[in-house]
Amino acid sequence: MYSFLCDYSEGAHPRILEALNRTNLEQTDGYGMDSHCLSAAALIQKHIKRENADIHFFVGGTQTNLTAISAFLRPHQAVISASTAHIQVHETGAIEATGHKILLKSSADGKLTPADIQAALDEHEDEHMAKPKLVYISNSTEIGSIYFKAELEQISAVCRENSLILYMDGARLGSALSSKENDLTLPEIAELVDAFYIGGTKNGALMGEALVICRDDLKEDFRYHIKQRGGLLAKGRLLGIQFEELFRDNLYFELAAHANRMAELLNNCFMEMKCGFLTHSPSNQIFPILPNNIIEKLEKDYSFYRWKKTDETHSAIRLVTSWATEERDVYVFIERLKKYYRSTDC
Amino acid sequence: MYSFLCDYSEGAHPRILEALNRTNLEQTDGYGMDSHCLSAAALIQKHIKRENADIHFFVGGTQTNLTAISAFLRPHQAVISASTAHIQVHETGAIEATGHKILLKSSADGKLTPADIQAALDEHEDEHMAKPKLVYISNSTEIGSIYFKAELEQISAVCRENSLILYMDGARLGSALSSKENDLTLPEIAELVDAFYIGGTKNGALMGEALVICRDDLKEDFRYHIKQRGGLLAKGRLLGIQFEELFRDNLYFELAAHANRMAELLNNCFMEMKCGFLTHSPSNQIFPILPNNIIEKLEKDYSFYRWKKTDETHSAIRLVTSWATEERDVYVFIERLKKYYRSTDC
Amino acid sequence: MYSFLCDYSEGAHPRILEALNRTNLEQTDGYGMDSHCLSAAALIQKHIKRENADIHFFVGGTQTNLTAISAFLRPHQAVISASTAHIQVHETGAIEATGHKILLKSSADGKLTPADIQAALDEHEDEHMAKPKLVYISNSTEIGSIYFKAELEQISAVCRENSLILYMDGARLGSALSSKENDLTLPEIAELVDAFYIGGTKNGALMGEALVICRDDLKEDFRYHIKQRGGLLAKGRLLGIQFEELFRDNLYFELAAHANRMAELLNNCFMEMKCGFLTHSPSNQIFPILPNNIIEKLEKDYSFYRWKKTDETHSAIRLVTSWATEERDVYVFIERLKKYYRSTDC
Amino acid sequence: MYSFLCDYSEGAHPRILEALNRTNLEQTDGYGMDSHCLSAAALIQKHIKRENADIHFFVGGTQTNLTAISAFLRPHQAVISASTAHIQVHETGAIEATGHKILLKSSADGKLTPADIQAALDEHEDEHMAKPKLVYISNSTEIGSIYFKAELEQISAVCRENSLILYMDGARLGSALSSKENDLTLPEIAELVDAFYIGGTKNGALMGEALVICRDDLKEDFRYHIKQRGGLLAKGRLLGIQFEELFRDNLYFELAAHANRMAELLNNCFMEMKCGFLTHSPSNQIFPILPNNIIEKLEKDYSFYRWKKTDETHSAIRLVTSWATEERDVYVFIERLKKYYRSTDC
Repeated sequence: MYSFLCDYSEGAHPRILEALNRTNLEQTDGYGMDSHCLSAAALIQKHIKRENADIHFFVGGTQTNLTAISAFLRPHQAVISASTAHIQVHETGAIEATGHKILLKSSADGKLTPADIQAALDEHEDEHMAKPKLVYISNSTEIGSIYFKAELEQISAVCRENSLILYMDGARLGSALSSKENDLTLPEIAELVDAFYIGGTKNGALMGEALVICRDDLKEDFRYHIKQRGGLLAKGRLLGIQFEELFRDNLYFELAAHANRMAELLNNCFMEMKCGFLTHSPSNQIFPILPNNIIEKLEKDYSFYRWKKTDETHSAIRLVTSWATEERDVYVFIERLKKYYRSTDC
Repeated sequence: MYSFLCDYSEGAHPRILEALNRTNLEQTDGYGMDSHCLSAAALIQKHIKRENADIHFFVGGTQTNLTAISAFLRPHQAVISASTAHIQVHETGAIEATGHKILLKSSADGKLTPADIQAALDEHEDEHMAKPKLVYISNSTEIGSIYFKAELEQISAVCRENSLILYMDGARLGSALSSKENDLTLPEIAELVDAFYIGGTKNGALMGEALVICRDDLKEDFRYHIKQRGGLLAKGRLLGIQFEELFRDNLYFELAAHANRMAELLNNCFMEMKCGFLTHSPSNQIFPILPNNIIEKLEKDYSFYRWKKTDETHSAIRLVTSWATEERDVYVFIERLKKYYRSTDC
Repeated sequence: MYSFLCDYSEGAHPRILEALNRTNLEQTDGYGMDSHCLSAAALIQKHIKRENADIHFFVGGTQTNLTAISAFLRPHQAVISASTAHIQVHETGAIEATGHKILLKSSADGKLTPADIQAALDEHEDEHMAKPKLVYISNSTEIGSIYFKAELEQISAVCRENSLILYMDGARLGSALSSKENDLTLPEIAELVDAFYIGGTKNGALMGEALVICRDDLKEDFRYHIKQRGGLLAKGRLLGIQFEELFRDNLYFELAAHANRMAELLNNCFMEMKCGFLTHSPSNQIFPILPNNIIEKLEKDYSFYRWKKTDETHSAIRLVTSWATEERDVYVFIERLKKYYRSTDC
Repeated sequence: MYSFLCDYSEGAHPRILEALNRTNLEQTDGYGMDSHCLSAAALIQKHIKRENADIHFFVGGTQTNLTAISAFLRPHQAVISASTAHIQVHETGAIEATGHKILLKSSADGKLTPADIQAALDEHEDEHMAKPKLVYISNSTEIGSIYFKAELEQISAVCRENSLILYMDGARLGSALSSKENDLTLPEIAELVDAFYIGGTKNGALMGEALVICRDDLKEDFRYHIKQRGGLLAKGRLLGIQFEELFRDNLYFELAAHANRMAELLNNCFMEMKCGFLTHSPSNQIFPILPNNIIEKLEKDYSFYRWKKTDETHSAIRLVTSWATEERDVYVFIERLKKYYRSTDC
């Protein structure tokens, strides 16, 4: 059984394990105050071209989101997000558990628009309603789409005009920035948003997300919030060592580019088979629509999500590739798929 | 500079790194639903002799404490703890951030007594006061002391008589159970408390704490709480693999016993030098009281905490040993200490 | 300027003021433990025909909702409600501020259906999502509609099959139960829901809502929650005295019936004028759709909400009547409206 | 049975009831936006000599405290208070329920000192501990003592040097300011603290506390917080009308002065009987220490709290007087007390 379920099925890229082995017996300070965390932060600052950005390392994405959002907001302030947002759908009410309402805007492609943001502002006008204050976007989104530069510029503009905090969930930022269609760079993102995180867990690390706080007034006392929410890792160096390795050179982007290439191979095959797609995805998650009988055959050898029933005889499935997906495994899948199509009346 | 600051200065025991390397390319399910987590849970159940205990793995202690306590309590219910408790002193208000009050009982030796618990119950009698519901104890405590069997039995009895939940923070449970003075076993603890955790971070793991829920009515929906608080690790297997290694045989206890032996060597030396101690500690943290001029000399080559000024010319320091402390480094320290004493008027 | 803005524009019904004056110098216990609160609770128990229901008095609706919902739920549990729900739209995120997510179901008429509830259950199936546990409905709803007996029975059935708590916001329960179209009784409601409140503020009291908890397992320690959320009124008797007066006889229902009659007079006039309505409302809030130029004329002498633009030249307005609305004021309004229509090309 | 249990045993001063009766049929805006609230706020601003202070009306003290404190603080920030503080002892964990830790300083007389504040600051120095940010004091305190001008100036100075918010709970501010020993004025308090509230419930109102926010940066969006915590009263005018009456002239201070005089009469009698006192109280709560057999006799005709056992045969009791305490009832009490003393071997 081979898994296309997610991009965190395997451990870590070998270089990361090597780094952990190499540094294992060093004695360092705890809680992210060690030389590896400092060095990893400096490397990331260099990549984003902002030496004064604050970098904090977390173990996972939900923890990063809930800590940052609750640290940035006062109690009456709310988050604007797409209805597909991870914080809305897949974090068990973690944001609400810190006291904040999420204001949803329905989205077909997983992206939020300036018009959505303006509408949320217009709808909330007095103290009987929560006050919109932070805009949450994901790049790539939960359904594989990515933000283009012009889109992010417009969102950033509407946020700044309205004193909204713009926060980007970058659990799959590597895949977004390494996409063939992408026209954004890390420094541009750091310029346009107020805070974002660079996901490691889904791109080659054992675990780890690097939160980047760009805006000065969001920086104060941030480590208190990490500790209070349970996110300050005792052996913080584990995160520093991994991000050192990912950003020492371009490893982070190379791993993501590989994942995207593997998704593209799969994508091309589905297009060849004349499959439709639930959504256009130029990143490492794809959502082809297949006949249910073919899905059943695939399920004998592969794990993946049945995402959505699209009609009586078809469903969209989700296939996710990663730094660890091997080309030969993709080709075996493609061969099988083609065989099933040949032997089936679709 | 050699560090006796804490027991999480180094990475992981070599067997743990080997296991991570060995399993790195396995594809597993995420979020702790993989075979390694299941196997680690089974090993722990066997060690504690309770097959129906629920085992959940966390990355760190504060996260374990805040998730368990907030899951177990209703909003108006409060925690009883010693004034020295980690949740009171060193978690940045994490428990209060989930909405719960901590009711403090002053403690000289870090331990809570049945009388403390009874007093807290007596003082809180109506709806104008928070309602005591959970008793938090640490073993070993934050200042190195350990609970004896008779003590734990009495605490357990007063809790059960009063329908209080008894929770043990086991960040350093290995050290407590491996102490020469200890008369408790893991199965006895599992019998006497309602939930406890077995600390890995401070005993040889890269990171990881195994929460054990013994009481049935505390088990329901627990994974929701882990996720909501940001503690559900995507590559949950990392925790499973480490606890598999620690509990496959007696590695967990051997590492702790080593740490205790190293602390004992230091302890014996301080006793030989006629030092006093802040508190009696039979575990891997010791708190000798030294002349300030000797402390200053030691600080040139060693990191450790100055814990408390005890008079104008003396202070208690904290020295912590671990699985990674090497005997030769302890002997070098002892030699230096003796030399400083010989050359000083104390 | 005459106001149809809301049903809390005036003070209290004269009988209530008289009762407050009459009892003013009595010395009573505080916090709702006095004889008036006990007597009011007994009167309500009699009206709902459940002597073992627990009755708690609150000053206002938002406080009642947030206290009850946060007392009933564990942290990971969520509320299912219509998108028009007061807790969703007009409580400034009060429910989320206690840590709970609200799962919205879009509703045209302000009512929730069994299918909505089932859909919410189906969509939330594992620990990565909040767990639906409480169903919130309002009767009458925020847009004037009311629940019929068959509807409430079906909702109650789906809740009980799925171990969901059914909670009814009765801020305007008097108006709902006194509606000409109503086929529900107080005892039936108490049978079908698990908790509900009987609104006084909008039906003749200075302030006050009576929360009725029908289900035994929701009753425990409830006064702690009221106190913790700041809702335990020192001179609790003020609430008891008012509800004594409202439920000593049928005053509560008579006041609501009067409000409904006044709304019906207005309603009939709008129908005569061939106005459309935003929604069908048989209670004390009506939402006629008027030409904007007529609205502007009315606004010179009357306050009311412009609720929603319905096309380029028309808007729905909200008119609310109450126990204090005098018939002669309604007739003056009607006269004016008719005059404006006669003199206008609509 | 006559009650000295508390200062909220009766309803309201007749002038307040008259005002409520007089204004009953006025139509006003809801939620504190009416002319009575505006006028009451203006009267209070004049009394405190700060026209730019923000005034918000609440129904009760716990609600005022929890709303203000949670609005003023970020999640990691904590409150410093005396161990006797109402928020610590008698609000069921209301502050913690909004997420904030209370750091206690033991106090014999109910007052906090600059040294206590400095100690709390010194003890909390890094992100592993909650960060002290707000100082909570009560005047008069929970045990009847009052702050003198020099004390408040010193506390204010240490707060401003350390960027701490100084908040005064004025549930019994009237009694404090009307005490014979008092040397503080309302304008001085408004100058020295950042926010405080003027208690109405315990000084002649049916209910009501007026929160005064002096510091500009604490004012923003405050009404959102009131609404979110359930404290925005629909018929807000009820609070405005009462404070109009209390501050239209000096009624507020006259009522408090009466209460203090009644307490003084009692006090003098206890001194004459050579009773000791638990604490020195120049306000409307006194804590004489009596032989238990005399207490038992008094309990036949009077309600009051047994506050604390002081030795095997004596206890301190609490007697509270109010605007409604009549002189003749005090004299009857005194006569009885003297009689019991005469007939007893104490």
